[in-house]
Amino acid sequence: MTFAPVEEQLLHLRRGVAEIVPEEELVAKLAHSCRTGKPLTIKLGCDPSRPDLHLGHAVVLRKLRQFQDMGHEAVLIVGDFTGMIGDASGRSKMRPALSLEETRRNGQSYFEQASRILDKERVRIVYNSTWLGELTFEDVVRLAGKTTVARMLAREDFAGRYTKDEPIGLHELLYPLAQAQDSVEIAADVELGGTDQTFNLLMGRTIQKAAGQPPQVCMTLPILEGLDGVEKMSKSLDNYVGICEPASDMYGKVLSIPDKLTYRYFELASDEDTHRLPELAEFCRTHPRDAKHRLAFSITRLYHGTPVARAAQEHFERTIIRKLVPDDVASFRPESDGRIGLLNLLTQAGLTPSNGAARRLVEQGAVSIDGIRVTDSRREVDLANEAPFVVKVGRRRFLRILW
Amino acid sequence: MTFAPVEEQLLHLRRGVAEIVPEEELVAKLAHSCRTGKPLTIKLGCDPSRPDLHLGHAVVLRKLRQFQDMGHEAVLIVGDFTGMIGDASGRSKMRPALSLEETRRNGQSYFEQASRILDKERVRIVYNSTWLGELTFEDVVRLAGKTTVARMLAREDFAGRYTKDEPIGLHELLYPLAQAQDSVEIAADVELGGTDQTFNLLMGRTIQKAAGQPPQVCMTLPILEGLDGVEKMSKSLDNYVGICEPASDMYGKVLSIPDKLTYRYFELASDEDTHRLPELAEFCRTHPRDAKHRLAFSITRLYHGTPVARAAQEHFERTIIRKLVPDDVASFRPESDGRIGLLNLLTQAGLTPSNGAARRLVEQGAVSIDGIRVTDSRREVDLANEAPFVVKVGRRRFLRILW
Repeated sequence: MTFAPVEEQLLHLRRGVAEIVPEEELVAKLAHSCRTGKPLTIKLGCDPSRPDLHLGHAVVLRKLRQFQDMGHEAVLIVGDFTGMIGDASGRSKMRPALSLEETRRNGQSYFEQASRILDKERVRIVYNSTWLGELTFEDVVRLAGKTTVARMLAREDFAGRYTKDEPIGLHELLYPLAQAQDSVEIAADVELGGTDQTFNLLMGRTIQKAAGQPPQVCMTLPILEGLDGVEKMSKSLDNYVGICEPASDMYGKVLSIPDKLTYRYFELASDEDTHRLPELAEFCRTHPRDAKHRLAFSITRLYHGTPVARAAQEHFERTIIRKLVPDDVASFRPESDGRIGLLNLLTQAGLTPSNGAARRLVEQGAVSIDGIRVTDSRREVDLANEAPFVVKVGRRRFLRILW
Repeated sequence: MTFAPVEEQLLHLRRGVAEIVPEEELVAKLAHSCRTGKPLTIKLGCDPSRPDLHLGHAVVLRKLRQFQDMGHEAVLIVGDFTGMIGDASGRSKMRPALSLEETRRNGQSYFEQASRILDKERVRIVYNSTWLGELTFEDVVRLAGKTTVARMLAREDFAGRYTKDEPIGLHELLYPLAQAQDSVEIAADVELGGTDQTFNLLMGRTIQKAAGQPPQVCMTLPILEGLDGVEKMSKSLDNYVGICEPASDMYGKVLSIPDKLTYRYFELASDEDTHRLPELAEFCRTHPRDAKHRLAFSITRLYHGTPVARAAQEHFERTIIRKLVPDDVASFRPESDGRIGLLNLLTQAGLTPSNGAARRLVEQGAVSIDGIRVTDSRREVDLANEAPFVVKVGRRRFLRILW
């Protein structure tokens, strides 16, 4: 098959990436693939114990999709081997051992969800128990002999626990080896993962070299912040957008992220054309509200298609916002040359006695514009583009802002 | 079967032992064995990569023999599993991987040599590859989950290497688990080892408990000093007495140990009756030369039988000493009330110009009595018991000392 030129592929592949180790090997692999017409094998490991995918998981899956779109081969590795074992020390209830049936079922569920992002005709799904289940003690000793204790304990989380005298089960040192062996089994050219997986991905290189294979390139993606804009997106913190959520929930949740994250979500969580990202960055700066609506639409479209996303948007604009606003809300037309700071606006409109009071209310999360909470007290409003809109302060005070 | 009373057994079992962990469990196990008539299972692991046994190895083997003599069951475990793997990192030439055939041959050789010490009708010899070779990765992960990295790195040699930034292969942490699993497989009641094995023996307890077995008692024996009286006995330092050496060599080598070790060798390396040890301690103190001859005879008899040991002793006394001494050697009768310091004797006899010069010569190893080098400058001679004897200084100066 034929591939796009290396530089064009790199433009897409570098998008949103935290690190490519080493980048020159990726360039060489892409060049070789172009010359020979042979696709690269791209590995992504997935944990079958957490079967509900959200936008945070989607970041690496989207990167995998980019590789697919350029003609490369995606391999999803379901980590059912370690899932079957759970917490070997038996101390933690957090990692119960799953039966083979459960890990298979979770793996299937993961695959079905991931298919909303991946080109499912061009993905290979494999279960690592297939080969890890065949390894003998002797194999494990040989595998373990390829690395050292010091190198394992250099891994950030291990290092922290070791110096704090928190127990590290000896078996935990074997898991990175297991997933490194996965790279050998599928002869991965590239492995994808979050930045928290850097160590494990590099271990794949070590073990591939020891097995006489060309080592994989490690490509890490940032950990996506959740709706609160601070913590990592996760189900347990309830700051997530599930990729299977109904379109209207998805649309509304995306709208609730802080402005400062809008561009980051465009880059990491949307399928907006990479070439247009600079333009979107500018849009986020100049029209934060519109940009966020576009983001919400873009992400919803990605998982539900254009018609459903359009309906969600209209539903949100016509129903949700209206529902939130009483019919008899008063209007106010601020004095401004078009742009006005939110604090100024609130004070000028008489909603707050002073800019200081306005700042406190904004920072407490008591202020929203068209039903979307605003927490950035430096937020400016572009009246020409954004008005008319409804400002709400506290529970009951509404004002329609005109221009 | 019936066993001697627990206290009588303990008297023998405590002989020369460094540590019994925990001693009260040994007492309970012996009591239970007495009550039920069921022998205890005593484990000793052996390294098949070093097939030549010497008196240092014999210390634990002798302890195993004591257990046999009291009716318990000895199990020799040949560590062919790890021997087959060698140094998994491939970095060291010191631990080449052995073939299964080699480890079996070495194991057989070990057994044949050990049979000079053990009651070979009552020893079971097993190869740990039998069960360790059957373990899967999953089994290994579960096994590893029973302990922590911190506990492994607490092992003295690991701790030292870790703090000195010397690499520890990850596989090295698996070996203690492997030999601990051996204890589970044979359901060991007691494991024997040198004091350098304490950590590994205790790991056996951990893994047995995790497997739901009553944990073994760990019994450690001191590391025997070699002929130089300082370093651990070892083949590479050439300070050893091989248990298969010809009787005359064995006799002569034992005679060459420093006086301060005579009693230690009686305790750890001879089969002198435990009840007589206090008496032998006194003998070593009052008659160091005779005590050492008795020790040499005792150890030689152990490996070669009484007639051969007797012949070796006579050969040594009549031939070796005479051969070493010229026919025309002069005589000297020192002025003394019976006991005299060696340095004084040398100076009085005119062999050295001063006690200081005498000390230097002794410490350089240039002085011998009846062909046995003396290196302890505080050595006293008991003329009443030891004379006549021949002192040799340097290569050519001889003097017969009379009383």
